[in-house]
Amino acid sequence: MPIAQNWLILLKFDGTQYHGWQVQPNLPTIEQTIEKALENLTGGLVKVNGAGRTDSGVHALNFTANFMVATKNLNTPEKWRKAFNAILPNDIVVKCVKSVPDKFHARHNAIGKRYRYLIYNSPYRPVFLKNHSWWIKKDLDIKLMQDAANVLIGVHDFSAFRSVNCTSKNTVKDLSEILIKKNSLNCKYLQIEFEANSFLQHMVRIITGTLIEVGLGRKEIDSLAKILESGQRRFAGITAPPNGLYSLRVIYPKGMVEWPIDVIDN
Amino acid sequence: MPIAQNWLILLKFDGTQYHGWQVQPNLPTIEQTIEKALENLTGGLVKVNGAGRTDSGVHALNFTANFMVATKNLNTPEKWRKAFNAILPNDIVVKCVKSVPDKFHARHNAIGKRYRYLIYNSPYRPVFLKNHSWWIKKDLDIKLMQDAANVLIGVHDFSAFRSVNCTSKNTVKDLSEILIKKNSLNCKYLQIEFEANSFLQHMVRIITGTLIEVGLGRKEIDSLAKILESGQRRFAGITAPPNGLYSLRVIYPKGMVEWPIDVIDN
Repeated sequence: MPIAQNWLILLKFDGTQYHGWQVQPNLPTIEQTIEKALENLTGGLVKVNGAGRTDSGVHALNFTANFMVATKNLNTPEKWRKAFNAILPNDIVVKCVKSVPDKFHARHNAIGKRYRYLIYNSPYRPVFLKNHSWWIKKDLDIKLMQDAANVLIGVHDFSAFRSVNCTSKNTVKDLSEILIKKNSLNCKYLQIEFEANSFLQHMVRIITGTLIEVGLGRKEIDSLAKILESGQRRFAGITAPPNGLYSLRVIYPKGMVEWPIDVIDN
Repeated sequence: MPIAQNWLILLKFDGTQYHGWQVQPNLPTIEQTIEKALENLTGGLVKVNGAGRTDSGVHALNFTANFMVATKNLNTPEKWRKAFNAILPNDIVVKCVKSVPDKFHARHNAIGKRYRYLIYNSPYRPVFLKNHSWWIKKDLDIKLMQDAANVLIGVHDFSAFRSVNCTSKNTVKDLSEILIKKNSLNCKYLQIEFEANSFLQHMVRIITGTLIEVGLGRKEIDSLAKILESGQRRFAGITAPPNGLYSLRVIYPKGMVEWPIDVIDN
């Protein structure tokens, strides 16, 4: 009998056709699709641990998940990668596979996450990225948005910026960066990148919705501190749609997980 | 009765669902879709002159077309733009409209065209741009490709680089630039830009296919001059698939057509 081995996979996926990461009855999800692929490859039920949940329609450039399995034939990272990609649908790809220590867990070991929110700021609709960005027609003032974003940086109770359905007990998060930048090739595309030790449900989307209201002149920069302090969801802005959101990085302690540079998408 | 006015439109479209620009019986095309929109808007049949033909599945970032029509209500560029975008499908957008002199013709007045070919060079498949790029798995040598491309720059008979079905009488074209560059954000994306006074059928796609063979080490740089001289399609490389091709600019004599900078996609 082969010995069980713990494998970590680096994933990229287009979330348009999926109801998020986590398995749900009768709905296609990324986790379910990968577990089904694993069942086809190994003949058994294998539980996959994703680095976190993602909302329906959310995409990933570099997402991680691990699973433990004993197989005779699939015994190298490259064999696993090829086997996955031969049977996974076209909108999910396994970019790299690593063998990791038995104790490694893609979610428990993560010490941070980085997300990107993509906005298409143009008077006319996006033709190519309609399922992959949020279309804002009116001109956004990026300087105002960045100033507002800076108010949120640091360790705060982000209760005001989470879904009313969020059940997390710890609402204090360390938001280390919000970076707003225009795409160098096409200034209509605005990227907002967020990095924190962890995020509450819809936190990135609610902060994005709030920053957009600032950028449109509908909310003052001063209001950010008040919203944060209030802890009340109703004072924050709208929840940005999921299809502009990308999981960009899952951050592990230094030295724990090193991917080759050329498999990382930016 | 209102007087007929000549209108020029700047278009962006995702060509995935269309059989190219030109009207064809029983097949959806861009021209047919725009003429149908015009029929809905004006109640009459209006002929649209596109700046050129595009192949099935080819996209456009900045394409032009003109039409002449007399209407009472649609009497400003902005009214036209909004009316088009209210009824055109989501994968076609009119970015700007101009009134132009009666004699202006989007194709006859064009003195050049610029195209981009997008290649996804990665061992794993593209997840987001699968209908919008050509996936090349093996590493491409860009330096070799650029050197090979430079052999083609200038005024040449490009008979070797056109479809066997191409019926153009003039096969001599002035190819002023082939520029190969990696996307600054994601080095897996390789862009090849072509500019010429005009192009033969499949010329960009056949040159691209040939350059890819050079980049993969399957063709020598020396062979380019021989292929060109032969005038024989069979010596050139394969025809790159249409879905990686984008119409980037239609070039008119200086001062004839000026678009606002912010409507031009790059």
